[in-house]
Amino acid sequence: MPSPAIALLLTGHELMTGDTVDTNSAMISRHLLETGILVAEKCTVGDEPDALKKSLLRLSQEYDGVIVNGGLGPTEDDLTASIIGDLCGAPLVENAEALAHVEAWCERRGIQANSANLKQAWLPENADLIPNPIGSAVGFSLSLGNCLVLTTPGVPSELEAMLPTVTTMLVAAVGGSETYIQRIQTFGVGESTIQQWANELGDGWPSSVTLGFRAGLPQLELKLTVAHAEHVPDQKRAYDLLVNRFGDHILGEKDARLAQVVQALLRDQKKTMTTAESCTGGLIASMVTREPGSSAVFEAGLVTYANSAKNQLLGVGENVLNTEGAVSEPVVRQMLLGALERAGADIGVAVSGIAGPDGGTADKPVGTVWIAWGTREDLRTHRAQIPGSRSLFQGLVAAVALDLIRRHLLGLPALPHYFTRQAQ
Amino acid sequence: MPSPAIALLLTGHELMTGDTVDTNSAMISRHLLETGILVAEKCTVGDEPDALKKSLLRLSQEYDGVIVNGGLGPTEDDLTASIIGDLCGAPLVENAEALAHVEAWCERRGIQANSANLKQAWLPENADLIPNPIGSAVGFSLSLGNCLVLTTPGVPSELEAMLPTVTTMLVAAVGGSETYIQRIQTFGVGESTIQQWANELGDGWPSSVTLGFRAGLPQLELKLTVAHAEHVPDQKRAYDLLVNRFGDHILGEKDARLAQVVQALLRDQKKTMTTAESCTGGLIASMVTREPGSSAVFEAGLVTYANSAKNQLLGVGENVLNTEGAVSEPVVRQMLLGALERAGADIGVAVSGIAGPDGGTADKPVGTVWIAWGTREDLRTHRAQIPGSRSLFQGLVAAVALDLIRRHLLGLPALPHYFTRQAQ
Repeated sequence: MPSPAIALLLTGHELMTGDTVDTNSAMISRHLLETGILVAEKCTVGDEPDALKKSLLRLSQEYDGVIVNGGLGPTEDDLTASIIGDLCGAPLVENAEALAHVEAWCERRGIQANSANLKQAWLPENADLIPNPIGSAVGFSLSLGNCLVLTTPGVPSELEAMLPTVTTMLVAAVGGSETYIQRIQTFGVGESTIQQWANELGDGWPSSVTLGFRAGLPQLELKLTVAHAEHVPDQKRAYDLLVNRFGDHILGEKDARLAQVVQALLRDQKKTMTTAESCTGGLIASMVTREPGSSAVFEAGLVTYANSAKNQLLGVGENVLNTEGAVSEPVVRQMLLGALERAGADIGVAVSGIAGPDGGTADKPVGTVWIAWGTREDLRTHRAQIPGSRSLFQGLVAAVALDLIRRHLLGLPALPHYFTRQAQ
Repeated sequence: MPSPAIALLLTGHELMTGDTVDTNSAMISRHLLETGILVAEKCTVGDEPDALKKSLLRLSQEYDGVIVNGGLGPTEDDLTASIIGDLCGAPLVENAEALAHVEAWCERRGIQANSANLKQAWLPENADLIPNPIGSAVGFSLSLGNCLVLTTPGVPSELEAMLPTVTTMLVAAVGGSETYIQRIQTFGVGESTIQQWANELGDGWPSSVTLGFRAGLPQLELKLTVAHAEHVPDQKRAYDLLVNRFGDHILGEKDARLAQVVQALLRDQKKTMTTAESCTGGLIASMVTREPGSSAVFEAGLVTYANSAKNQLLGVGENVLNTEGAVSEPVVRQMLLGALERAGADIGVAVSGIAGPDGGTADKPVGTVWIAWGTREDLRTHRAQIPGSRSLFQGLVAAVALDLIRRHLLGLPALPHYFTRQAQ
């Protein structure tokens, strides 16, 4: 069966002014892709009835299914239901199921349903309701000519909660293909490096497995996609190939995050970590403590931005600061030892670098960073050159710092590929 | 003159899979809006030549101008030039100006232009070049029927650098309206509060001035828009009304950021600040040090997540920690005093709260936070309840902390509206 042709119609004035960046369509696209449907077109228009009507009519003539996003709310801007009703020749009627939903929603909040709330229960006649587990506005589906139209709310959390139902309804009506996607989170290896390796494998890479990428900062997501259940063993084989070659860069599957992985390792090993940050200014500690449960593994960190603070709060020798400079091996070594002692932590990381835009020298240009990591007994240091703007530099240094802790906890060799490559 | 009808055509496989969130179209939209052009439609398709061709043909028939984004790069996917050439009946020719650009670009990088680079110099005959100050791929413009088509690269930084030229070319060809937009950054007051106030002003609000909003986290951007030069004085009057009513919430104009404003105030007053963070785990320090130049105003901060760290690193009394708990007035007071002393700073902020998802009690539910801010001589404290998920809570608490420093430096009354409203 050929894959159905699906389009998205996104509506909202704020999308046309650029005041809102559209993240909903990417969410829908990723969701549909898990059932093998690649969205063919996205069309975005404002809240003008004529524009909405014209676009929806065109899309319904060109596609098997259209998911409409936005315009379901209680305000006057929200025109989706009446426009679809118009196009389908279906008058809006009070939908008993939708009414019950709105009333229950209001009751849970201890409020009386007002006319704006109740407007949300008026749907085109014969529309099938799409439940909204979170918000007051339900979605609905209805045929427009040969096209199935499904409406969804603009609020991202509500959309996310409704997408499984939307996908099921869409696939039931227009079909979809079996698709099995395995998502793998990596750090410290580039898309081009992995792609080139896979290319060079030639027949060694299972041809039924599509290798895809989603570049995030700081992580890179790999996707192994197979179209049929019979190829799932190939997917497993591709995964093993990846682990064999890039295993030390693999953080985990699905949505694994670097800080989360570090926390889990610390918990397993019953250890605590600490941070001594200069150029990252608290970002490493912030990444660690963003994860729920971090109090079990992180007790304290120090942000020592000035030399005097490195001396007074961490015990870095004034002499070393003066002779070697703040961005130097002995300084990060002493920073880490000072932090390990003061925080009473088992393992830690210290960074001192030049985030820019000012402060670079010929010897130590902007982007230079010294990192110390490990334990009192097994303390390692490295100088690296990290490219990018100030905030990019800070983000990358913080991610590298966490990755070095991860590698240390895993007992991986001292220097990762992203350092040794630089040194060559 | 009526405003011209403009559409965007965005291309790229990664936009259809959802692997990339489209931020380019919002950037273009915001830019065009400054010349009074509200984008009427955005159309997004993948890299398939037929889909691109069909969409561009349709848009060229319906709109005065189309900005195409993406597909200018050196890879085989990049089809924009050949498709536009096809549609316009203009063969691709080596454009001398574009060739010189590509060669100069390669030379600056010390590389020899390869065939992929050189492909970027092949543009439809008679196309007008749009210079790219950053990347190797130039854009171009060409008429397709009655529509002006302008092509731009998908790399955001390159797009941004080219937008002034693109806008000028577009407005010169299809017109635009005078528009004067004043953007104002605020913190701590809601969109609905400001909108309701403006509504209640009635005729007191100048009718020629449109009040708009762009909700960010943590800031809210206000936009005062007038369509003609003669109304700029009204814009000034509206601004004065806003300052009069919400002045203490106004951070500045254009892209002013909270941490930036705090840094400027500290510089002016020749003061340094420090942080003692529990529940925000380094986020406040990280926000401060993300801004270039922060070393002049920030020397050190402490992340004391565990009680033992509050005691050992900041000198918070064990007794107080045991009897009052970590989330309490005396603890944040002692945290701040300890940080001010250890960092040798003039002013600071300390926070201790329950970020969740666990750790809440009946007395102190998730979202409870105690904040201390100010100087040794003028130290203030407040308990607040901040809603939202863990990361939202941390972000809001950090922003509030910086805002309290700002207010203290400005000599504003102790408790901001967002606290007193909560207490009611």
